[in-house]
Amino acid sequence: MNSSNLIGKPLLEVDTPSLLLDAEAMQANLNLMARYFQGRPAKLRPHFKSHKCSRLARLQMQAGAVGITCAKLGEAEALADAGIRDILIANQIVGPIKIARLVALARRAAPMVAVDSAENIRMLSEAAAAAGVTIRILVEVNIGMNRCGVEPGTPALELARLIHSLPGLKFEGLQGYEGHIVDLRDEAERTVKVRAAMKPLVETRRLIESIGLPVHIVSGGGTGTYTITGDLPGIDEVQAGSYACMDWWYSDIRAEFRQAQSILATVISRPTANEAVIDVGRKGVGAEFGPPRVKNLPGARVDKFGSEEHTTVTLPDGQTLPVGGRVEIIPSHGCTTSNLYREYIVHKNGVVTDVWPIDGSGKMQ
Amino acid sequence: MNSSNLIGKPLLEVDTPSLLLDAEAMQANLNLMARYFQGRPAKLRPHFKSHKCSRLARLQMQAGAVGITCAKLGEAEALADAGIRDILIANQIVGPIKIARLVALARRAAPMVAVDSAENIRMLSEAAAAAGVTIRILVEVNIGMNRCGVEPGTPALELARLIHSLPGLKFEGLQGYEGHIVDLRDEAERTVKVRAAMKPLVETRRLIESIGLPVHIVSGGGTGTYTITGDLPGIDEVQAGSYACMDWWYSDIRAEFRQAQSILATVISRPTANEAVIDVGRKGVGAEFGPPRVKNLPGARVDKFGSEEHTTVTLPDGQTLPVGGRVEIIPSHGCTTSNLYREYIVHKNGVVTDVWPIDGSGKMQ
Repeated sequence: MNSSNLIGKPLLEVDTPSLLLDAEAMQANLNLMARYFQGRPAKLRPHFKSHKCSRLARLQMQAGAVGITCAKLGEAEALADAGIRDILIANQIVGPIKIARLVALARRAAPMVAVDSAENIRMLSEAAAAAGVTIRILVEVNIGMNRCGVEPGTPALELARLIHSLPGLKFEGLQGYEGHIVDLRDEAERTVKVRAAMKPLVETRRLIESIGLPVHIVSGGGTGTYTITGDLPGIDEVQAGSYACMDWWYSDIRAEFRQAQSILATVISRPTANEAVIDVGRKGVGAEFGPPRVKNLPGARVDKFGSEEHTTVTLPDGQTLPVGGRVEIIPSHGCTTSNLYREYIVHKNGVVTDVWPIDGSGKMQ
Repeated sequence: MNSSNLIGKPLLEVDTPSLLLDAEAMQANLNLMARYFQGRPAKLRPHFKSHKCSRLARLQMQAGAVGITCAKLGEAEALADAGIRDILIANQIVGPIKIARLVALARRAAPMVAVDSAENIRMLSEAAAAAGVTIRILVEVNIGMNRCGVEPGTPALELARLIHSLPGLKFEGLQGYEGHIVDLRDEAERTVKVRAAMKPLVETRRLIESIGLPVHIVSGGGTGTYTITGDLPGIDEVQAGSYACMDWWYSDIRAEFRQAQSILATVISRPTANEAVIDVGRKGVGAEFGPPRVKNLPGARVDKFGSEEHTTVTLPDGQTLPVGGRVEIIPSHGCTTSNLYREYIVHKNGVVTDVWPIDGSGKMQ
């Protein structure tokens, strides 16, 4: 059945595996996060990488987000196609093919990109100036994750100066992502470590401001740290993404958000009295933080996980689940799960209310 | 750039990350496997799940494959769309939605499915008989993987009898997959264990034949075991898939096949003197068996892997790799890598010769 024909049908008529989105739970998450940022100095710029769905991104904008964050240029193009203009690509856009696409995007939206090298800055400037557009730039600062980014202090200041001196670019500020500690299980430990990690980022802001260069945006944070990073003086924007749909890895430390997404699966085999094999595996479940958990079936758990298209659910004694029965599971990682699907089956009270394309799925380029 | 415009262009003009397929290496793999099965009792029915590309599946048919194996009904539909008729869906097709699709597929192709429960067999029979089609059936036997399948011997015999007794179904034979030992690193250990695992499958064949029920197909095997399972009397078909494109997990134990697929990436950051961050991570690399390896760059290795869109390559002393430079990496698992892309960039001597849709990508249903 064509998915759009599903609207108004019960979930029982949805083929499996499908990625379900509970509309009420998702909206409650959006509202809760919006309330947190209401009246605060820091603003929310939700990360698209978590759900990759522009329909959902537009709801986030309606709930007060100042713009959208994304990881890839292809995601930014999908957002622009959906009418969203203020887009942070929180990564380096490198090489002539990508930069030509970025310049084209700047004609129909207001993209902002991260940089961490002088070569990249010079190439961006040349292309933007030649095309007569302005690209907004954040200098990425390494605050302990040791992935991309220059060191805080003088190295960041020098790049800021370079950006400011070149045509076609606008220095907007800094980005520093505490990804190495964003999901620490212990809240007290997370709070202490995140504050310490963000300190050199804010100090770098002050250093740059001290030479008379305005810093408009300092961006960082995630779902695990929105109340920590989002509460720090000197932080302007938080890039939280997972809060909208959630996963069990974040649910364990962020119980204030509801579990809005799940994977609907069908039992295809009952190999033993207490095992039910369902029709989804690694190709449909983001599992970097552990195997999926079973929803609405107390005592059931996933002990065997690893096949591409199968997951074995271990049932508690006395639980029946026939071949053909339905099970919902919650992935440990929502961001890598949504990327495996092409659409969200949006539902309310067990009935499909809409089907939203996951238009950022596979947009790695 | 539209991908089809890439034909005739050098790889330097291909955007990243992209999934590359070396046409010569792939064809050499197809030829080598075809030669192995030439004149043997066992035949090759390559598994589509590894590359999910019907253009490649058609080349496998041209190289002598008796049909194609796939994991999902959606993959089978993609194969039928590409003109392939003899398709084994090596899984249980369960529930009214799926069975209706299977019956529809049986009108335009000759699908064969695995079963392991009486309920499923009865539903398949009812639907097929009502529609006036015949579905070909293999009984799946558990030979130690402990996923799906009934036990060897009488339980399998009983299902075979049931299939034979019902309208709309044709009992074709048995399937047993030695997935738990298919990739054992030690060849001698693999050989001994695989022979032991396949023994009860072949004995079940003889048991069923002993009551006068013909067994046309006993199917099993993979790239790690094609010379073991494919050499056993009583085995008719081998389901190897990875051999066509390969990955490093299989390359380590199957050096006779060439590494035909790689991921082309761009260096976006040089955070330290010996580190280069490239623009692909978990969302573009199947990594269940370990982080990717670096191709054509001796001494370079991946120590840090885990980000969704980044991989950090550690460079040997003295190696230069500028921001904007290109790197190719080899995933540990090809089957979950191809599923993350939408097309193969087919190349020969550094020039793009074709772009093949990965038409099975995301076809989980």
